[in-house]
Amino acid sequence: MSKEITSRAQDYSQWYNDLVIKGSLADHSGVKGCMVIKPYGFALWENMRDQLDRMFKDTGHVNAYFPLFIPKSFLSKEAAHVEGFAKECAVVTHYRLKNDPNGGGVIVDPEAKLEEELIVRPTSETIIWNTYKGWIRSYRDLPLLINQWANVVRWEMRTRLFLRTAEFLWQEGHTAHATAEEAIGETRQMLDVYATFVEEYMALPVIRGVKTESERFAGAVDTYCIEALMQDGKALQAGTSHFLGQNFAKAFDVKFSDKDNKLEYVWATSWGVSTRLIGGLVMAHSDDDGLILPPRIAPHQVVIVPIYKGDERKDELDAKGRELAAQLKKAGIRVKYDDNDNSRPGWKFAEYELKGVPIRIAMGLRDLDNQVVEIARRDTKEKASIPMEGLAAHIPQLLETIQQAMFDKALAYRNQHITRVDTWEEFERTLAEKGGFISAHWDGTAATEEAIKEKTKATIRCIPLNNPEEDGKCILTGAPSRQRVLFAMAY
Amino acid sequence: MSKEITSRAQDYSQWYNDLVIKGSLADHSGVKGCMVIKPYGFALWENMRDQLDRMFKDTGHVNAYFPLFIPKSFLSKEAAHVEGFAKECAVVTHYRLKNDPNGGGVIVDPEAKLEEELIVRPTSETIIWNTYKGWIRSYRDLPLLINQWANVVRWEMRTRLFLRTAEFLWQEGHTAHATAEEAIGETRQMLDVYATFVEEYMALPVIRGVKTESERFAGAVDTYCIEALMQDGKALQAGTSHFLGQNFAKAFDVKFSDKDNKLEYVWATSWGVSTRLIGGLVMAHSDDDGLILPPRIAPHQVVIVPIYKGDERKDELDAKGRELAAQLKKAGIRVKYDDNDNSRPGWKFAEYELKGVPIRIAMGLRDLDNQVVEIARRDTKEKASIPMEGLAAHIPQLLETIQQAMFDKALAYRNQHITRVDTWEEFERTLAEKGGFISAHWDGTAATEEAIKEKTKATIRCIPLNNPEEDGKCILTGAPSRQRVLFAMAY
Repeated sequence: MSKEITSRAQDYSQWYNDLVIKGSLADHSGVKGCMVIKPYGFALWENMRDQLDRMFKDTGHVNAYFPLFIPKSFLSKEAAHVEGFAKECAVVTHYRLKNDPNGGGVIVDPEAKLEEELIVRPTSETIIWNTYKGWIRSYRDLPLLINQWANVVRWEMRTRLFLRTAEFLWQEGHTAHATAEEAIGETRQMLDVYATFVEEYMALPVIRGVKTESERFAGAVDTYCIEALMQDGKALQAGTSHFLGQNFAKAFDVKFSDKDNKLEYVWATSWGVSTRLIGGLVMAHSDDDGLILPPRIAPHQVVIVPIYKGDERKDELDAKGRELAAQLKKAGIRVKYDDNDNSRPGWKFAEYELKGVPIRIAMGLRDLDNQVVEIARRDTKEKASIPMEGLAAHIPQLLETIQQAMFDKALAYRNQHITRVDTWEEFERTLAEKGGFISAHWDGTAATEEAIKEKTKATIRCIPLNNPEEDGKCILTGAPSRQRVLFAMAY
Repeated sequence: MSKEITSRAQDYSQWYNDLVIKGSLADHSGVKGCMVIKPYGFALWENMRDQLDRMFKDTGHVNAYFPLFIPKSFLSKEAAHVEGFAKECAVVTHYRLKNDPNGGGVIVDPEAKLEEELIVRPTSETIIWNTYKGWIRSYRDLPLLINQWANVVRWEMRTRLFLRTAEFLWQEGHTAHATAEEAIGETRQMLDVYATFVEEYMALPVIRGVKTESERFAGAVDTYCIEALMQDGKALQAGTSHFLGQNFAKAFDVKFSDKDNKLEYVWATSWGVSTRLIGGLVMAHSDDDGLILPPRIAPHQVVIVPIYKGDERKDELDAKGRELAAQLKKAGIRVKYDDNDNSRPGWKFAEYELKGVPIRIAMGLRDLDNQVVEIARRDTKEKASIPMEGLAAHIPQLLETIQQAMFDKALAYRNQHITRVDTWEEFERTLAEKGGFISAHWDGTAATEEAIKEKTKATIRCIPLNNPEEDGKCILTGAPSRQRVLFAMAY
């Protein structure tokens, strides 16, 4: 029953896949490019979703639900937007199947062709702004602070579980404001909410920044982002928050009368994070033995494994195990008591290591006699013998210690992998040998950005917020530059 | 700003639409047949969803997520299933748009045609059983108790907000078992979970029963249901739980080795409730002034409205209002304090009546002096002056009183509208003049069921569970019958 995990050194990409599939997070499905999120992976997502949802509500947002389908003509109304999404759209053209009169089984009924094709939403700006048109009349209707939890579809030819799938789950906030300033404030606020969530709950340090024009969301005036670093030195965009200006208001003719009764176009933002975050979580923290999940979002924070010797004092051991589990549960801890008879403790230990449960508690007959348990940390593999007395007070502290240690480790790794380079040769060598973020001067043109991408596959991940001004020369062209930007290879 | 509501007597159907739209639950969208669930309606759905989710988890279920798309060939594997759903399928045939080379805007790219069409899930048995095939090997893998919260699409020509829309939100449980007995037990357990939820949280009494063969879910061996009664005398199917036998296991070749190492097909159930429940909630409880929402699931259980006289002692009134709101919130009550200056108290009163907030608390200067508030119940419109002291203790009790009163009222109405009839003439007259459930003898044949439906539009809603045996004669054919069944007009 042992589940072999490819090591990172051997094949990083296969290691990732092994962890996701053998760690029971997700599985391939019978539909090309679409995944099944398994119960364990979904429990992780539920914890992430619920925390984000609380943070959205605490900042004044409410949830709603908009249609899955977008008429083709809606998508086409904002020019940059349709340009950005047209190439990856699932298109519904018919609304009925029928039996093939020639006996070929079930076929699409050619008579049930839609007058206008429907696009399965790749993102919902267009259908939502078409709706907002009916909801916004006056400044009194603003701001509109709405979020949606939904599935979206972007057709992908090369997919990877969580990181890039045709269908994924996400949330998309869509807000409407009376002024540009307020909308920009909202954009920045939600970027901060994302950064706080990813750092404090996922234990993953991020860099906040703004995208260059060519990496902007299709239809945005500015795209802000948080960027995280994976263990293979590649960056992962963990969340984006867009200031949309009046682009969608103009495309859908959404105006409001201000306090002076003057008609004005509405200002917009949108912002989203997705199940892709789970891919980042896996790649940032895990090791060759399996997942390492941060306590604050782990489905099980603690697992208790009793170690039986046949039936000897089994009832006594079970009673104690259940009692300890109940104590921990009462202390608000997500604990699993595993008394499954079908597998041996050694197999269970490996299984919970694979699944990344932060703390494993084991307990045998001798422990019972000594009123102690063996505690093993998943992140450091440290073990300790701890008195049962006071366990419910000790564990919450230890969980917080683990949470912090995971963040500190990821932060140290990330900080060691931001390299300042000043020449093209250094740039190429750093990319090839070290990876990570490269802080370098760039002349500010899309042409240079594209040339660097073609030569190295590295992209500008962001221009960090509060970036200091510094005179320098572009690493590729030598043209003058006023600030450094962050390059990296990216997922 | 007054929002005119059509009365039930005038036009029941329009009354329903007015409540849903003007009560801010949902709106029509730019996509034919699809609705927008507005923030207030979605908050109601969240409360329903969260409670159901707790009940599912308490009965051992976990959540997962399966693909939105179902390959056409999967849907076709179970003959009755595809027969039942083929006529209402949204079909994805292409995966890309492009610019029309002839300048006709954005068009579907004919070169991006899928090899096999994908169906937007109308329900997920087929994609899930195709997945279960990879997960189930031995009896140790069973039972599999999985639920999914998702959107589904069933193409409808005539739609009504919540009651019948092309896309709707629901949950679908899909479980796998080693024995028929266990699967039937699960089917019945989930029916009971649904009945408990609808009665205790939605304050809506239901009849538990089993469907006749012709009303069965496409692919089921038995369909159990809960049926509720609306104020216009029509029934509404509020939830269904299906025993699927081995039909899907056979269609997808899902076998397990039992304890004797014998290969056997797996037994299945599926069960679901949807946003349709909200339609039932609206139609069962509301009146001509608006919605009446049961306290346990109402987005706001209490609203506090301060009654200002210009700026006179406004700060004092506000301070007290906020203090009371904080007290109630601390007592676990969902309370809204409405100090919005833009609208007058009278308008607010009408608005919260329309939105069905169970308790309205109003407070003016004289109330402040006397340390009392005016409490108004939405369900009975009763008003009372209550001391501020002890309000946080009084309100929870009153909310429970309202919850119970709403159930009792709906139950009395429902019980008055179950009519036993023994002749065809009585049957027709009761349907035309009184409506409700009609308890009558039926000869047990699909032909008679169909004939009755054609003559009257009434259908057999269910054969109630624990139905007493009673010899009688079929109301239509006079053929012998062993039990009464429940007929009704239905949504």
